[in-house]
Amino acid sequence: MRIEEDCIGKLPIDEQALYGIHTVRAVRNFPISHEKLDPLIIQSLVQIKKAAAETNHAAGTLATDKQQAIVAACNDLLIGRHADSFIVPAIQGGAGTSANMNVNEVVANLAHRLKPAVKLQPNDDVNQSQSTNDTFPTAGKMALLQQLPGLLGAIGQLVQTLLVQAKAHEDTIKVGRTQLQDAVPTTYGRTFMAYYHLFKRDLARLQTAGDHLTVVNLGGTAIGTGVNATHYYQENILKVLNQNTKLALQSAPDLVDATQNCDGFVEFSGAMKTLAVNLSKFSNDLRLLASGPQSGLDELHLPAKQAGSSIMPGKVNPVIPEVVNQVCFEVIGNDVTVTMAAEAGQLELNAFEPIMLRDLLANERYLQQAMHTLVKNCLRDLTVNKTACAKSVEQSAITATVLTPYLGYVATTKLIKQAVAQHDSVKALLLKKQLLPATLVNQLFSPASLTQPRATKPTAMQSQA
Amino acid sequence: MRIEEDCIGKLPIDEQALYGIHTVRAVRNFPISHEKLDPLIIQSLVQIKKAAAETNHAAGTLATDKQQAIVAACNDLLIGRHADSFIVPAIQGGAGTSANMNVNEVVANLAHRLKPAVKLQPNDDVNQSQSTNDTFPTAGKMALLQQLPGLLGAIGQLVQTLLVQAKAHEDTIKVGRTQLQDAVPTTYGRTFMAYYHLFKRDLARLQTAGDHLTVVNLGGTAIGTGVNATHYYQENILKVLNQNTKLALQSAPDLVDATQNCDGFVEFSGAMKTLAVNLSKFSNDLRLLASGPQSGLDELHLPAKQAGSSIMPGKVNPVIPEVVNQVCFEVIGNDVTVTMAAEAGQLELNAFEPIMLRDLLANERYLQQAMHTLVKNCLRDLTVNKTACAKSVEQSAITATVLTPYLGYVATTKLIKQAVAQHDSVKALLLKKQLLPATLVNQLFSPASLTQPRATKPTAMQSQA
Amino acid sequence: MRIEEDCIGKLPIDEQALYGIHTVRAVRNFPISHEKLDPLIIQSLVQIKKAAAETNHAAGTLATDKQQAIVAACNDLLIGRHADSFIVPAIQGGAGTSANMNVNEVVANLAHRLKPAVKLQPNDDVNQSQSTNDTFPTAGKMALLQQLPGLLGAIGQLVQTLLVQAKAHEDTIKVGRTQLQDAVPTTYGRTFMAYYHLFKRDLARLQTAGDHLTVVNLGGTAIGTGVNATHYYQENILKVLNQNTKLALQSAPDLVDATQNCDGFVEFSGAMKTLAVNLSKFSNDLRLLASGPQSGLDELHLPAKQAGSSIMPGKVNPVIPEVVNQVCFEVIGNDVTVTMAAEAGQLELNAFEPIMLRDLLANERYLQQAMHTLVKNCLRDLTVNKTACAKSVEQSAITATVLTPYLGYVATTKLIKQAVAQHDSVKALLLKKQLLPATLVNQLFSPASLTQPRATKPTAMQSQA
Amino acid sequence: MRIEEDCIGKLPIDEQALYGIHTVRAVRNFPISHEKLDPLIIQSLVQIKKAAAETNHAAGTLATDKQQAIVAACNDLLIGRHADSFIVPAIQGGAGTSANMNVNEVVANLAHRLKPAVKLQPNDDVNQSQSTNDTFPTAGKMALLQQLPGLLGAIGQLVQTLLVQAKAHEDTIKVGRTQLQDAVPTTYGRTFMAYYHLFKRDLARLQTAGDHLTVVNLGGTAIGTGVNATHYYQENILKVLNQNTKLALQSAPDLVDATQNCDGFVEFSGAMKTLAVNLSKFSNDLRLLASGPQSGLDELHLPAKQAGSSIMPGKVNPVIPEVVNQVCFEVIGNDVTVTMAAEAGQLELNAFEPIMLRDLLANERYLQQAMHTLVKNCLRDLTVNKTACAKSVEQSAITATVLTPYLGYVATTKLIKQAVAQHDSVKALLLKKQLLPATLVNQLFSPASLTQPRATKPTAMQSQA
Repeated sequence: MRIEEDCIGKLPIDEQALYGIHTVRAVRNFPISHEKLDPLIIQSLVQIKKAAAETNHAAGTLATDKQQAIVAACNDLLIGRHADSFIVPAIQGGAGTSANMNVNEVVANLAHRLKPAVKLQPNDDVNQSQSTNDTFPTAGKMALLQQLPGLLGAIGQLVQTLLVQAKAHEDTIKVGRTQLQDAVPTTYGRTFMAYYHLFKRDLARLQTAGDHLTVVNLGGTAIGTGVNATHYYQENILKVLNQNTKLALQSAPDLVDATQNCDGFVEFSGAMKTLAVNLSKFSNDLRLLASGPQSGLDELHLPAKQAGSSIMPGKVNPVIPEVVNQVCFEVIGNDVTVTMAAEAGQLELNAFEPIMLRDLLANERYLQQAMHTLVKNCLRDLTVNKTACAKSVEQSAITATVLTPYLGYVATTKLIKQAVAQHDSVKALLLKKQLLPATLVNQLFSPASLTQPRATKPTAMQSQA
Repeated sequence: MRIEEDCIGKLPIDEQALYGIHTVRAVRNFPISHEKLDPLIIQSLVQIKKAAAETNHAAGTLATDKQQAIVAACNDLLIGRHADSFIVPAIQGGAGTSANMNVNEVVANLAHRLKPAVKLQPNDDVNQSQSTNDTFPTAGKMALLQQLPGLLGAIGQLVQTLLVQAKAHEDTIKVGRTQLQDAVPTTYGRTFMAYYHLFKRDLARLQTAGDHLTVVNLGGTAIGTGVNATHYYQENILKVLNQNTKLALQSAPDLVDATQNCDGFVEFSGAMKTLAVNLSKFSNDLRLLASGPQSGLDELHLPAKQAGSSIMPGKVNPVIPEVVNQVCFEVIGNDVTVTMAAEAGQLELNAFEPIMLRDLLANERYLQQAMHTLVKNCLRDLTVNKTACAKSVEQSAITATVLTPYLGYVATTKLIKQAVAQHDSVKALLLKKQLLPATLVNQLFSPASLTQPRATKPTAMQSQA
Repeated sequence: MRIEEDCIGKLPIDEQALYGIHTVRAVRNFPISHEKLDPLIIQSLVQIKKAAAETNHAAGTLATDKQQAIVAACNDLLIGRHADSFIVPAIQGGAGTSANMNVNEVVANLAHRLKPAVKLQPNDDVNQSQSTNDTFPTAGKMALLQQLPGLLGAIGQLVQTLLVQAKAHEDTIKVGRTQLQDAVPTTYGRTFMAYYHLFKRDLARLQTAGDHLTVVNLGGTAIGTGVNATHYYQENILKVLNQNTKLALQSAPDLVDATQNCDGFVEFSGAMKTLAVNLSKFSNDLRLLASGPQSGLDELHLPAKQAGSSIMPGKVNPVIPEVVNQVCFEVIGNDVTVTMAAEAGQLELNAFEPIMLRDLLANERYLQQAMHTLVKNCLRDLTVNKTACAKSVEQSAITATVLTPYLGYVATTKLIKQAVAQHDSVKALLLKKQLLPATLVNQLFSPASLTQPRATKPTAMQSQA
Repeated sequence: MRIEEDCIGKLPIDEQALYGIHTVRAVRNFPISHEKLDPLIIQSLVQIKKAAAETNHAAGTLATDKQQAIVAACNDLLIGRHADSFIVPAIQGGAGTSANMNVNEVVANLAHRLKPAVKLQPNDDVNQSQSTNDTFPTAGKMALLQQLPGLLGAIGQLVQTLLVQAKAHEDTIKVGRTQLQDAVPTTYGRTFMAYYHLFKRDLARLQTAGDHLTVVNLGGTAIGTGVNATHYYQENILKVLNQNTKLALQSAPDLVDATQNCDGFVEFSGAMKTLAVNLSKFSNDLRLLASGPQSGLDELHLPAKQAGSSIMPGKVNPVIPEVVNQVCFEVIGNDVTVTMAAEAGQLELNAFEPIMLRDLLANERYLQQAMHTLVKNCLRDLTVNKTACAKSVEQSAITATVLTPYLGYVATTKLIKQAVAQHDSVKALLLKKQLLPATLVNQLFSPASLTQPRATKPTAMQSQA
């Protein structure tokens, strides 16, 4: 055991540990759960430490040997070494200070281990020109941005799969349903196309919200005024960091604003919540359309993925949409958490970024994985029960809607009532009654007529215009 | 009393009433509260009826006398006549059908009253080429868009007021605070500037979300397939409507998607929620900085707007930020309502648009009015207690942060502890100890040095680099 | 115009107005919406003023003529006179001070008008021994308690209606559905009975949460310490108030706690939210079971309440459950508002009670009315499509579940698969294969066996034990 | 590799694995995160399997050797062996079927391994008389109940600590604050006592909500009708289970209701949310009262737990309340998730119990741990800055409130204004002006008078009564 000291007092630290006293205090102070801080945030902080060392060196405020030692340590950490040295909890007080100090300590100790001649002070050297208040939210945004392509890719995959299904079912006529009651017909091509367009908007929304996350407050140090940073550092740190990480981070126009306000997180959370709303609605539709097999709508056949019941043999359930629904509920709940945490920021800082980042990073992963399994295990091999779909259009009395331009709303209503009472189809009754010429009737009840606008005004017998 | 009949049965209707049986049924079915449907939605529906009549006439599907009668009736209604004929409740089942039918009936009856020779059927003539499912959400978006400039204007006003205050206090130095603990200094200029930038982003966000609301499904009729509309109508209805209303509505690329999905409402709600988060944080800050007068921070003096207590004489409270906070909580709660309602949409339609529109329209108004009173009754005449601000910077031990590039983090920590223990200022102790040259010390503790990055690297005695 | 003055300055007041300067300032400060403070809160404040005058008089701190004048004025107001004198907005800053002062002013002025010889000061006389901080939340709770019997009554009505339907359909066998897939059968009697038990729990939950609302902080004055009240007043005010109002208010054991904490509102909101969750689930079920008429489950026939579509003739939608769903979404959103407002309380007071009370009072009314229309317009005359229900049980392959104690899970699975492939019923196939004695098969597939536990262990051919 | 088969098809399974095909399918189907199903749910399911085997054996439906083998396997699992065999994800579709089947498979295979002569079928033997739909929610409630004493204990600890602090500071007078403005004085004894009473209510609320969780649907099998269970099993299973687990589970009066409705979870979530609201308010107060050290209220000194800043030396932040706040935001967000998941239940089952249980179990742990660290690392060693508190009461002009029964509200207001303008204390000015006798003045401004109701009516110079 070695003894370390901070402004609170002394503490024994495991001799071999790369972390130090600040890290150990955090572990003791925040025993909320076993969840550690997200490795992507750690990695991003290490990237910041490396870029800061390079920039400080170029600014003339960090000696060459120190810079080299820091960079060497960071490089080791970036390839995944010593990952078990990062032990601060995901849910932590202190606005991320423990996370930042865990990294500062590990980098300083590792650098010294790698270059024993160089002695580094975590705050003065590794954290030079930085504060938790600019490094932690910047690292958080970097982590979110690194996961974003995966999320966008999963939406892209979903969109493509929907397009394939839409094309495959361009002519599969089906009953439309509004308010769960039979409505005028449509096709499964149109149905899938509608989801396609829906999720394309999510793609755009998340791209936009993600772009806003590239705006960071690095260089603002403690409260955005940049105290203790040099002008050189402020002007160059993002260039170096972008070069190292291939990200496209931009400096916020107002670092004070960027340090205290978390609206970018609320916006990003909102975009994910909107995706969740859409995915949940889509999953609800899938489950409903696949209901049955005997006593449900039975229009869609989702691929059977597992036995559905421990007691009812042969039962197969829509387990994939079900897991998607649950992810969506979680994302929507997390949006409330992010909202409250952002609202609770006070004056020059929001101390509640750790919980926001935890939930946002989880949301990204949950949604990505939910869409992956939805595409792979449900949508790709989903089939449509064409016979049932066609039959229900035939049976549907509401297709008589196409008659209203010819007969009017009131007369058509009566015709429908009579057909239903006689267990007759409207078309049959109409032909029987000879209210309209047979050719017109056949044309009106054709799939094209039932599912599209009219080319021209109604002619024969049209008395409404 | 006259007797009307629909597919359900007969009902007596007040002889003078312009509305008819569908309206009366709605009033009976939905006795949730006394709140009527928003007049802006009614007005927008009337605009749609008028534009539809003109377009249908041009398409050859509506006779000239009918078109003229409908337009005459709509014009009457648009100047506010017969407003008491619109009696359907704000919270209604039926996906807006009652709202649409209330308008169809009033237009038909009024048209007939104005031109007794013309007899109109509400569904066949007034509602021709339309469905509730395209007119109602379109009217809802029109209503939201009509209120949007007022909301954006209020943000603009807020932003301008903040800029004025920022300029007025460019040099008012003050203690920064992170995690409610004293931090390095800043100025009230920077503080107000941060809010300025924050709300400018809200302006942009709401503008973007508002733009998305211009995309409507009018022409899609029942489920987006456009059944019973003509091609001519679909292609021309928005042109006519835009001409009449000076709005810039666009047709959705996929009318089926646009009829069933409410992500545009969720997105718009999310943008208002983000504004609410920011306004609430700002109000919290105002109330905190104005706390006192004797036992608080007492940095800001908000204009006294009313006696604060029925029992404590002379007490004045921050009532304006308090009402803003409450509006924000309401908006955030309403966002959950909109989220759930949007998620609950099923298949070809979302039947829960009435509650979404109600909450979204209320949010727009609440936020606009909250910002109006915040600007007018609080921000414009707010003053800063400069003496107190300056004094607290002087007293602050944490300003010693600027010494760390010269003395290092550990030594500076000790110096601060000693100064606090001796009830001395760090600067005085530093001069006494002669750790740094007096000129450097004075320069370091100058406002500029305390609140900005350094031009160059630390030179004298710098042993850290 | 008369001129009034407060600690802020002077203001002209309408000569005839019973309210005074504090009221007018509130109207100017809080122009959020046109919604006035809930009349039930006003009435409750008037009751408090009356009881306080009586108690203060008995304590010897209010002269007899003043007491009589105040009581006379309150009695006038309690029968609804001068209701238009209460003009402060529902959403107000100041923790309810404006509401309290509006009442203090109106009572003082009206008392003077009724007894011109008596001159009353609103704060010293009408508000004697009181503060907004104890009168306003107490009045809020009184308002909630006055609406509570209506809410509980509506649940009671719902519960009774469900019981009637349960008894009516005790023997109506139907397919059960889990995860929207066909499951083992049940009866509509059991289905309605399950809802019956569900809403009985809501009744109990709301009764309990309502009981907690009877605990008030009246007598605590400004911050619960009771400053400026007499011991006599503290000990007697609730007795008098309870006598006058027939409520059963109790004094909180700790008035300081009761003044600053709003957990009672959060709890009550949570109980209403739970009811909303249950009502929404129930409404979703009703809409789903009534889906059709041709292409849905078509098990329930909800009474037709209005024409369902402006374009599709003869369409009838489940408009009553739909409006219930929307009320539930609103209540759930309002719960978030109440939660945030309660969390935002600071130190000795929660300044955000106005928005909490507004939303809670609205929730009570919305839920009561939603259940009223649900019972009256939907549940009472709802019928069950017994033929369809019976037929779907016959068709259902999953009823084969009852065979697993005899044949085992794996063999039964195979049997089901074969039956489905051959478009045969499992029972028929079973008899054909002679796997079990015909009498046993007939007994197993009887309604009783399909929907209940077994009396004894399986005997014939049972090879599993 | 061994090959297993289910109704979907065949799959190779690791030769050594105790789990089987249903488990492996779940892992493939639900790759949402690395989080496994909560071990407490697994343990509870194992307890159910054991109790079911014993009960089925007594009912005569399970052979003795099978029963013994199952019990032996369960006993092994209950002492923690083979914990790595439970690999199904926490977030899973299928309503918990995968969880139940993972346990069925492991028990069956382990039983066979332990007693090779006995061959068990997971569904027929281990799952006999059970369904996922009764075992999974029952196991979930058992898990919640097992964690509940820890949660209640943590509240109890908090309550006790508050009582100690309340007693220690009975006479520490301090400024009260309403709406963040100085109000009449109180003592820290009263302040801590108020929190004490607050959290005692949470204790009661959670106890009540927890009691409701003891009502389970075990014995209801698939949809609550008890199909495939025997009467004997239904009547005895809970007795056996309670005996084995020392829990006090009760059978729901209506098993169909209990199988489909999740209001018990919503209620329990609501009780935890209410606790979170209270804890967050308390934490906000602690942070505010400890603000400073130079430019804040500086009334409370929280124990220093870690260095507060990586850049600002000597800074110490309220990190413990900060982590509590974040836990509260998470719990409040999770309440929305639970709400939505419960609302989404359909017909005979709620398929979304896995996400509800995950969030509820996490909430229990988070809250327990948050209170642990709050008590241990913050409240126990918290001290009050008595000098500062006393001084601010002296300075406070608002203490003049006690004069209003003698001078009236208006005259007191003027006196306060004059005192503040002259930078004089109200008491001094009053003595100077000789408005009241000096002895009365001294008595009125004594701590007792300032913080309590008056024993009697004001006498000297009292002109108000």
